[in-house]
Amino acid sequence: MQLGIIGLGRMGGNMARRLARHGIDVTGYGLGADTRSAFADEPRIRIASSLEALLATLPAPRMVWLMVPAGEATEANITALAAQLGAGDLVIDGGNARYQDSQRRGALLAKRGIGFLDAGVSGGVWGLEEGYGLMIGGAREHFDRILPLVRALAPAPDKGWVYCGPVGAGHYTKMIHNGIEYGLMQAYAEGFALLAARKDLELPLAEISQAWCHGTVIRSWLLELTAGVLQDPAALGPVGARIADSGEGRWTAHEAIDLGIPAPVISAALMARFASQGADDFGARLLALVRNAFGGHPLPPPTAPPRDR
Amino acid sequence: MQLGIIGLGRMGGNMARRLARHGIDVTGYGLGADTRSAFADEPRIRIASSLEALLATLPAPRMVWLMVPAGEATEANITALAAQLGAGDLVIDGGNARYQDSQRRGALLAKRGIGFLDAGVSGGVWGLEEGYGLMIGGAREHFDRILPLVRALAPAPDKGWVYCGPVGAGHYTKMIHNGIEYGLMQAYAEGFALLAARKDLELPLAEISQAWCHGTVIRSWLLELTAGVLQDPAALGPVGARIADSGEGRWTAHEAIDLGIPAPVISAALMARFASQGADDFGARLLALVRNAFGGHPLPPPTAPPRDR
Repeated sequence: MQLGIIGLGRMGGNMARRLARHGIDVTGYGLGADTRSAFADEPRIRIASSLEALLATLPAPRMVWLMVPAGEATEANITALAAQLGAGDLVIDGGNARYQDSQRRGALLAKRGIGFLDAGVSGGVWGLEEGYGLMIGGAREHFDRILPLVRALAPAPDKGWVYCGPVGAGHYTKMIHNGIEYGLMQAYAEGFALLAARKDLELPLAEISQAWCHGTVIRSWLLELTAGVLQDPAALGPVGARIADSGEGRWTAHEAIDLGIPAPVISAALMARFASQGADDFGARLLALVRNAFGGHPLPPPTAPPRDR
Repeated sequence: MQLGIIGLGRMGGNMARRLARHGIDVTGYGLGADTRSAFADEPRIRIASSLEALLATLPAPRMVWLMVPAGEATEANITALAAQLGAGDLVIDGGNARYQDSQRRGALLAKRGIGFLDAGVSGGVWGLEEGYGLMIGGAREHFDRILPLVRALAPAPDKGWVYCGPVGAGHYTKMIHNGIEYGLMQAYAEGFALLAARKDLELPLAEISQAWCHGTVIRSWLLELTAGVLQDPAALGPVGARIADSGEGRWTAHEAIDLGIPAPVISAALMARFASQGADDFGARLLALVRNAFGGHPLPPPTAPPRDR
């Protein structure tokens, strides 16, 4: 079994390692000058110096797993692969593409006889050790071809992966997964903020977070991660109070609107991130002026201008 | 070690069993005609026929663990115990009391020399098997007295329990735990609703929920429970679309308001429960009439009157 992987960053690089350690030969191609040395201790991983060189190492029919950022990088690679692959070859997009883009790309590749699978991959930097959760869409026959890869990447051969349906179903499912993640993370953050705010009770946050990981209704992997962070109370100090958002939360909220299904918690979590980015500064300034205008309430002292988003 | 437990329902009864199986003698007292037969196979559990009888079986200084519903039942039992216990005795309230009530009760009992611990207990009906998460407030010396009980109830002797601080800190921490639980549950519910709404993709909810339990960022005990429920798709049919709320979510939202700390996700989860209870029917009727008044939009057909809450 031999696979080409494009994109050897935090996710792709560790996935290549996990596959190689399960006996699968991998040819990788990625940007970054020291790529070759980073994989020097992995005899089953070869590093190609270009996309063309990578494709030349693969036996027909070829399988190429994309692990690059969603958006332009994915689009450029799909375009290049559409031109250089042929009938019977198979592309797997393991990035966080918007599912509508995956449906369009699947149709584009299908016109040339190239198969396409959209694979949502969860697990972050812990996946090498603990395995990746996988949600995959596409033709069943294409999925069956990559099943050995799926079983190697997953936490266990029969656990943590799911065939979701036609092209788009994998990234749709991953989008919802990440939308849920927004809600979960915000719920924990609010709870710990309410614990921290009761300074009179001097609640031991580090110990509470660790205790909650065992036996409680709210125990989870994210809570274990949070508990790890809270073991060093000083860690919070130098961190900016700003949460980035990377697309999936917005797409989930869009989907809720298109389907007319209420998603108040996921939406509120997304809006909380926007607020943390300074995106409600304009509204806050406006309201300060209006309160001053109708009630003579004093204006707050000026703060830095709204941050770039 | 000998403990009295008042309240032998789903929580208290199983806690008595878990303690007994860890070698602790328990005298229980609870309402319910068949209480005695329910514990016939537990040689370390004796059933008393009244509060007075229960107290008579305990060696001094006595320890009594309350496991009755928050509110009136707890208040009545605390009042009775305040009259019948004496200096050096110890009351532990393991129910979901409001933390301000626990602070008041702790002060009341302290006047008579009776110790008080407020113990948040999580784990539900699974606690007998998996152990309970415990968050406990009160004087450290009182906590030290019940440490053997805590270590027996917890999932492991050194895991899943935390001493939170003075009286009130235990129930405060449990309140926040349950507030977080509201947010987590709603986030999962919204995500699965968005999966179910995409009927064109025919997403396999049961398989997705199971796969998500392994390797993903959103894996959790609540997700495992949800996956168990989703294995029988027909189970959703006969269930009313109405989520009860039992106080802790409201208290958490109150606390956020009193502290001025934003809790948009926990609040939205609480409001979603109110909406499911029909509490937004009045507003919806009003808006239907207003839309009709300004735009001639047709009125929806009448539905049943707002449900009792």
